[in-house]
Amino acid sequence: MTQTNDPVAKLNELTKGIDFAMLTTIRPNGRLYSCPMATTEAEGDGVLWFFSSNNTEKVEAIKTDARVNLAYSDSGSQLYVSITGNAEPVRDHVKAKELWKPLYSAWFPMGLQDPNLILLKVNIQTAEYWDSTAGRMVPLAGFAR
Amino acid sequence: MTQTNDPVAKLNELTKGIDFAMLTTIRPNGRLYSCPMATTEAEGDGVLWFFSSNNTEKVEAIKTDARVNLAYSDSGSQLYVSITGNAEPVRDHVKAKELWKPLYSAWFPMGLQDPNLILLKVNIQTAEYWDSTAGRMVPLAGFAR
Repeated sequence: MTQTNDPVAKLNELTKGIDFAMLTTIRPNGRLYSCPMATTEAEGDGVLWFFSSNNTEKVEAIKTDARVNLAYSDSGSQLYVSITGNAEPVRDHVKAKELWKPLYSAWFPMGLQDPNLILLKVNIQTAEYWDSTAGRMVPLAGFAR
Repeated sequence: MTQTNDPVAKLNELTKGIDFAMLTTIRPNGRLYSCPMATTEAEGDGVLWFFSSNNTEKVEAIKTDARVNLAYSDSGSQLYVSITGNAEPVRDHVKAKELWKPLYSAWFPMGLQDPNLILLKVNIQTAEYWDSTAGRMVPLAGFAR
């Protein structure tokens, strides 16, 4: 990892090349479920955006409990990243247009015109990554809040 | 996937080849954290076992809140599995001996003699996997309880 004091830049460096993260939410039944989410780069203010359908159990979960974890893993390179945050469903057509990539059509064939398409905004509270030398997860400095 | 009515066999078929799962726990601060765990096959009674050090934040988390999620992901084959369950720390030398593999020495150089080595027993409540045709997570029948 190159040396930078910008925690968002460090995070993006770690997760680049991992196309899907597992998003864990707490459903109204109180249990933890995860599902894959196409990843995007974290933004300068410590925010991650994801596309989602509105009528999903994860969105229902987030509406009743905003707490989430995002798990990035790549066994081949022993790369494991955990992001702790709060999520909120957001309708923002301008932001959606900015983030949209053609490959998302695989999950949203109607594209940005899909009335069911929303954004999930994750505010990062903590990020940790697996340090294989130390043999444990270590925090990415700069996110703690 | 071959057709079998045994949910544990189906689950093991899905997760074989994924050497590490991301275990999400709820820490005493109420937030969700994940870390990689070396995987083992689920047992016939819907139980998963993992090795852990006793003095870790995940074990502290589990002692105060047993709810966990295990996320298995392999982007290359679009394979994503979510396991919902309850975890408990267990000291069981006979079970540990049965489960031990030489490769675990990378994390536990003292092996089975390590006084800090414990087992985490996860009782599976629900398992879901990504159905790429349906474009959503679908439950593995037989676990719901």
